[in-house]
Amino acid sequence: MTAQIIKGLPVANAIREELIPKVKELSAKGIQPKLAVILAGGDDASRVYAQSKEKVGDKLGIKVEIHVRPDEVKEEELLKLVDDLNADPKVHGILVELPLPKHIQKELVMNRLDPKKDVDGVHPVNRGYLLGGQEHLALVPATPLSCIELIQRSGVELKGKRVALVGRGDTVGRPLASLLIKRDATITVCHTKTVDIASITKAAEIVVAAAGFPGLVKASMLSPGQIVIDAGINQLPDNSIIGDVEPAAAEVVAFLTPVPGGVGSLTTSIIMSNLLKAVQLQGLG
Amino acid sequence: MTAQIIKGLPVANAIREELIPKVKELSAKGIQPKLAVILAGGDDASRVYAQSKEKVGDKLGIKVEIHVRPDEVKEEELLKLVDDLNADPKVHGILVELPLPKHIQKELVMNRLDPKKDVDGVHPVNRGYLLGGQEHLALVPATPLSCIELIQRSGVELKGKRVALVGRGDTVGRPLASLLIKRDATITVCHTKTVDIASITKAAEIVVAAAGFPGLVKASMLSPGQIVIDAGINQLPDNSIIGDVEPAAAEVVAFLTPVPGGVGSLTTSIIMSNLLKAVQLQGLG
Repeated sequence: MTAQIIKGLPVANAIREELIPKVKELSAKGIQPKLAVILAGGDDASRVYAQSKEKVGDKLGIKVEIHVRPDEVKEEELLKLVDDLNADPKVHGILVELPLPKHIQKELVMNRLDPKKDVDGVHPVNRGYLLGGQEHLALVPATPLSCIELIQRSGVELKGKRVALVGRGDTVGRPLASLLIKRDATITVCHTKTVDIASITKAAEIVVAAAGFPGLVKASMLSPGQIVIDAGINQLPDNSIIGDVEPAAAEVVAFLTPVPGGVGSLTTSIIMSNLLKAVQLQGLG
Repeated sequence: MTAQIIKGLPVANAIREELIPKVKELSAKGIQPKLAVILAGGDDASRVYAQSKEKVGDKLGIKVEIHVRPDEVKEEELLKLVDDLNADPKVHGILVELPLPKHIQKELVMNRLDPKKDVDGVHPVNRGYLLGGQEHLALVPATPLSCIELIQRSGVELKGKRVALVGRGDTVGRPLASLLIKRDATITVCHTKTVDIASITKAAEIVVAAAGFPGLVKASMLSPGQIVIDAGINQLPDNSIIGDVEPAAAEVVAFLTPVPGGVGSLTTSIIMSNLLKAVQLQGLG
């Protein structure tokens, strides 16, 4: 193994350390930051995710309230719940755990969120601020922002770097493209219709895999000295989690983020960081 | 000269021909499509642009209403005008001519537009739909969409093509990046911090220049056989208009759009096309 493994936990801890005094500052002003998590249906994994947010919140002094609804919840009931949380001045952020039950139109729920409480940046207004380069106004989706934090807090300069971004989904790929452009990287966005992806990934200095396809990025598509960020989180039939990058990549490149234990380890901390930004955007704090 | 020149006018005419029966269809339903243009201050050029919309509208059966305000108009007066036009059911689209007077906060005016009447796609919600790949819900900014129409209606396939996009501005570059990704092109976004832009432009099959910098893309940065789209519109001190691509590029590449007479010739037709989409998005027609 030649690659140095960039673990997510130390970066997540660093982010949390920075949040603690900010939460205290808000408390001193009488503001108790509060995140509402909507968990509609969902499997054990979703429940675990939601509960892990509660635990992290406890450590930071952030209140996390989980609103559980059964699999057969009606769409209008969910929309009503969003309306109530939007209107509640004690709730500063709302996170909708995915996937939603199949009979619920995801877009309808996401577009109903108050953009200023939308801590995972799924509302069109927040995406629009990203595309417009107005990040200061935006709540940025957690996974793409986790990739950026992982890169930058590992001391890697993005400015002027050639980045091959493999994946163009609306959750990670496209928002991440905007974040990378804003940070002066020169990005090439690869996808299923790209001819000869390997020639692009090999020529890059940084490769970000965000396609959601297990092992798509092979060791043979990479070059020595590269930094490889694996934003893929793919669940196998045996419930194990693997990334988009073939593990053998560690024999080739200089730096690699693991899955699990890489990008995914940061998202809850980023959500909490977004919650504090949401407090600001709401004119509080 | 080796390059074939792709002129904008025939493409603009083709788009207009398609709009005429659609306008007639709306008329038959009692809907008279109407575009409101806000012209605050501005120079002779802005007035000419606004009037040219009136003329095109006349030919298509679309009513264009120009709201002229003096250079010293107050911000709140402009916002009130936007509110009134948003509320007027006879107005289906609103276009704010740029630049606005310096004391007016552009963002404040743009973000006040009803997204469903925002025919130049400047509201964050419309940009957000673009980033999210939900173009069917979006009103798409005119200049980037003009580039796409010019490419596609010239019979050029975008799918799988390597595109070098020079420029990352919020008006053309970034929205165009989203449109190109959606159309299965493999894009590399170049900008002032990109190292060795020439190596990227030379290796592309299609080059789009949208940096707003006269003559930035030199003939020496291009290769034989390429298609070059010049979205730059730069006014020189003598009032002449030139593009971002050096004219000598015509000696190198296979296809080139002229400036003036290329991308810019389509924008008014695209605005009219967006107006009819706006009618649909408003649940009319």
